[in-house]
Amino acid sequence: MDHKNKKYIPKPGAKFTKREKLPNKIDTSTNAIVFGTHAVHEAWLNPDREIKHLYITERALEGFQKTIDEAKALGIKRPGPEIYIKPALDKMTNGGVHQGVAISADHLLEISAQDLVTLAYKKESATILLLDQITDPHNIGAILRSAAAFGADGIIMQTKHAPLLTGVLAKTASGAVEHVPVAYETNLSRALGVLQDAGYTGLAMDEHADNSFADAQIPMKVVVCLGAEGKGLRPKIKEQCEIHLRLPTQGSIQSLNVSNAAAIALFAINGLTTD
Amino acid sequence: MDHKNKKYIPKPGAKFTKREKLPNKIDTSTNAIVFGTHAVHEAWLNPDREIKHLYITERALEGFQKTIDEAKALGIKRPGPEIYIKPALDKMTNGGVHQGVAISADHLLEISAQDLVTLAYKKESATILLLDQITDPHNIGAILRSAAAFGADGIIMQTKHAPLLTGVLAKTASGAVEHVPVAYETNLSRALGVLQDAGYTGLAMDEHADNSFADAQIPMKVVVCLGAEGKGLRPKIKEQCEIHLRLPTQGSIQSLNVSNAAAIALFAINGLTTD
Repeated sequence: MDHKNKKYIPKPGAKFTKREKLPNKIDTSTNAIVFGTHAVHEAWLNPDREIKHLYITERALEGFQKTIDEAKALGIKRPGPEIYIKPALDKMTNGGVHQGVAISADHLLEISAQDLVTLAYKKESATILLLDQITDPHNIGAILRSAAAFGADGIIMQTKHAPLLTGVLAKTASGAVEHVPVAYETNLSRALGVLQDAGYTGLAMDEHADNSFADAQIPMKVVVCLGAEGKGLRPKIKEQCEIHLRLPTQGSIQSLNVSNAAAIALFAINGLTTD
Repeated sequence: MDHKNKKYIPKPGAKFTKREKLPNKIDTSTNAIVFGTHAVHEAWLNPDREIKHLYITERALEGFQKTIDEAKALGIKRPGPEIYIKPALDKMTNGGVHQGVAISADHLLEISAQDLVTLAYKKESATILLLDQITDPHNIGAILRSAAAFGADGIIMQTKHAPLLTGVLAKTASGAVEHVPVAYETNLSRALGVLQDAGYTGLAMDEHADNSFADAQIPMKVVVCLGAEGKGLRPKIKEQCEIHLRLPTQGSIQSLNVSNAAAIALFAINGLTTD
């Protein structure tokens, strides 16, 4: 089939209508755009996610059929595919790496720090990440992915500065936004306080700390607080933490990319013990 | 001073000529473009790096003066600053996050896997990373940064697929390209063989491996082999490795961003022992 045909010509008997233009403008305040094979697959199979449209290329539909069948077998209600040519998806995703598939969906339910406490209430150990002034969607996406892989119990970000769980962030998270509960809070210090009141220990990742992550005893319920690269944690959050640890780095390059630092923390806390 | 003044008007007595246009087109086959505060700082103080031009905004020059003075005190010969307005640097760096400062410099010396053996010859333990089919400059930059922070002894990439140590990669590496030796090899399997002949053990990171990174004994001299996300290591490289380890991840999201996986491996090998 001619994917380069820019003019839409309906063919008699064609199974789907292949469109080059996008449908009505998608309102991103009420809709999350999720794209990329892994991200859409996980969203599609997340029963808590209401999906409105599936925008897909003919070629991508072949591979996606398995996911459609899986949802059907699980009794999850989903819309039918709407076939578009690649340039239409390029436009919809602002040039994102969409791999031929995108959805518009409701945003995930808003939850709070208190909800994270409730969700992990019965667990003996729990790890929550608090991201202070971290704004890069690639970094946050990678952190979500590592959080899912190491079974973290939630992430807290600041309403004012943090991006939504959509677009590039959701793509980079590779489906993890469907698995890790994310709370947006206005005041991160107060949110940390809520968790501390519930028995969590605040752990500040701080490159100037005396003690290193390598040989520290980590409490059973912990909130790992990470600041933006360069600036680090804001003083108020740092002082509110009971434990301060640095990564055991050396030489003239001491600080890591923030998602790499988060991955190491998650491995040190959850990876070394749960396996 | 009026930074919005698009027309260049030389002022009598002005200390520098402020330019909006770039100089003669920079040939990137013979020149590395390095931009961003950290990346340029480390390059500026690297005596092995020949720097041809410093392109800088008036505002960034203030902060960079300390670096200039430091190099002078060390007797490192460097060119004088050439003042440009921000849009000129935007163009030169293809819209990169340049923070007002960029240099053109010679590419770093080409080295081989054999050179890496030589460099670490006297060390009791050594860690080298082999990146198979990893091409994303952000990921490679972040891996270089973690490699520097955990004192890794080198990185091997494939000439055909790997990006050069310039631009976005160098920016993301945050100066680490000046500290971690990188070998480009035509044949990665042969390069791994060179290291194995010199007493290194090949360690394949493989999500399907039986054993986990969490409780493995790591040999003193090791080549950690990482494949691209999704595809993983090519079979030939994987089979050539003596040890196969997975990260101790769980749940439906098992695989990590490749730079996060590399950071954890480096922490597990070097961070847990050297601190």
